[in-house]
Amino acid sequence: MASFELIEPPLLSRAEIDRADQVRKDPERLAAGWAQARILLVDHSGRYAVTDTGGLRWTPAAELGAAPVVGAVFLGVAEVDRWALRVDEVPAPSGEPRSGAHLLGPDEAGLLATALGVLNWHRTAQFSPVDGRPLDLVQGGWLRRDPESGAEEYPRTDPAVIMVVHDGADRVLLGRQSVWPDRWFSTLAGFVEPGESLEQCVRREVFEEAGVHVHSPRYLGSQPWPFPRSLMLGFEAVGDPSEPLVFRDGELGDAKWFHRDEVREALAREDDWGADNPGTRLMLPGSVSIARSLIDGWARGPQA
Amino acid sequence: MASFELIEPPLLSRAEIDRADQVRKDPERLAAGWAQARILLVDHSGRYAVTDTGGLRWTPAAELGAAPVVGAVFLGVAEVDRWALRVDEVPAPSGEPRSGAHLLGPDEAGLLATALGVLNWHRTAQFSPVDGRPLDLVQGGWLRRDPESGAEEYPRTDPAVIMVVHDGADRVLLGRQSVWPDRWFSTLAGFVEPGESLEQCVRREVFEEAGVHVHSPRYLGSQPWPFPRSLMLGFEAVGDPSEPLVFRDGELGDAKWFHRDEVREALAREDDWGADNPGTRLMLPGSVSIARSLIDGWARGPQA
Repeated sequence: MASFELIEPPLLSRAEIDRADQVRKDPERLAAGWAQARILLVDHSGRYAVTDTGGLRWTPAAELGAAPVVGAVFLGVAEVDRWALRVDEVPAPSGEPRSGAHLLGPDEAGLLATALGVLNWHRTAQFSPVDGRPLDLVQGGWLRRDPESGAEEYPRTDPAVIMVVHDGADRVLLGRQSVWPDRWFSTLAGFVEPGESLEQCVRREVFEEAGVHVHSPRYLGSQPWPFPRSLMLGFEAVGDPSEPLVFRDGELGDAKWFHRDEVREALAREDDWGADNPGTRLMLPGSVSIARSLIDGWARGPQA
Repeated sequence: MASFELIEPPLLSRAEIDRADQVRKDPERLAAGWAQARILLVDHSGRYAVTDTGGLRWTPAAELGAAPVVGAVFLGVAEVDRWALRVDEVPAPSGEPRSGAHLLGPDEAGLLATALGVLNWHRTAQFSPVDGRPLDLVQGGWLRRDPESGAEEYPRTDPAVIMVVHDGADRVLLGRQSVWPDRWFSTLAGFVEPGESLEQCVRREVFEEAGVHVHSPRYLGSQPWPFPRSLMLGFEAVGDPSEPLVFRDGELGDAKWFHRDEVREALAREDDWGADNPGTRLMLPGSVSIARSLIDGWARGPQA
């Protein structure tokens, strides 16, 4: 099979920062680091404080309180302790993750992904799903615990497969949801269910969404996708363009097999994006997504 | 690097059954199929009804009620509709998944993994983690919904990496938790956190658990592991046996580098298992686990 590789790890998967997991469990250590700590402010829509050039803007912890603020998330240690805190309003300027994370360095991008992932979990995990009782937030924002029973809940992450379906030669299957802009297509994707492997999920999802039977699923790379709490697991798989496309589960409004040349042209030209442009050419997902990494890798051509 | 592959997909990842996801959303279709349906009974510890030869034993749905029982989980269609139901006591004979699933066919093993995964989720998802309100169970047991607001909760699956750490030659790092039998060693493993890729998680977990820096993580395969709700993502990674072992996070009680010959000998000999045997030789995890698949694949030797 004409396989390919990702050109480099996806944008949110390159950090080498020390997440310092052990520090989370040490309240004295967390408190001792607070005075020198730096805090990333994030609002309820996920916008985050940025510098003039779009990098992360850190607020000195001392401006927010004398001790770790309840609800803040300990992100790790980079020179000093790094935390994130959700606030109603982020002072300008602010950035939007999916359109702005490409302006971040590798460690910054990883810190932002971690901040969003844990903060999004906070919002949907205030009560025990076991008995409905309210839970405390402890361990630097990484654990919820019943104050009476001690029962624990850890952050939830939902694994999802995302796949370049190609024909082993020069054609690739891309789809679009009905609500997307007309010319925008991307890779197919779907959540992994209990009782299935990633490889089984790839085959099931492509058939459910597009009616195509695929084989030879092969893992290519992964990326956290905290919108709100996914973990994207990137694959290639091989299908037959002569098989009729059927949008069985209604997830897709349309799907098409594109030629490699058309995809390459779309990747080379990003300047006509926007609703005011009457073009009819293919538009692809942005550089922050693993969808883009997968399409970039496939478009470059076989590596094996 | 001397890479290897899994010899075949792990035992719980071989099913080709039709999970018939669309049927879950069709109450009339579910009801219509009930009279002919077959039900797998599972108790609260995960034991399931088996035949004399250890295969799944199916109870006619009509013996349980005239319509789909609340709490039953629709597993898919294999000749007739297949469901699972948790009961206080499974009539003998019954099987234990981790020690008995190797007696199942591929589709049976997948049905059992699905049944356990969704039933385990039922037990810990009766209330909304968002507001603590009780949730209804709908869509053949695959969705919980707030009867007033309509808010939805889907089954939770926790992704975890599990890795053969080797030296690129003939040595492999295996560890044991303090509570395990003395001679039992297995691969290292750990849950993926928000904000990290699988590859980042592999590096972090090996360092946290054993103090070893690894490189070149490479995905090998995956398996659902519903004990209670994990998805195991199998990797190899390369470390240096001369690096001192440090059990930083206390997850492991011990870890050692074993030579390939010692691992092969342990794989070839399963007869001295048991507490009454005074042997001191290496014991490895059972054939149902992806840990065993990974060790089997590595022991066979380089494939690439």
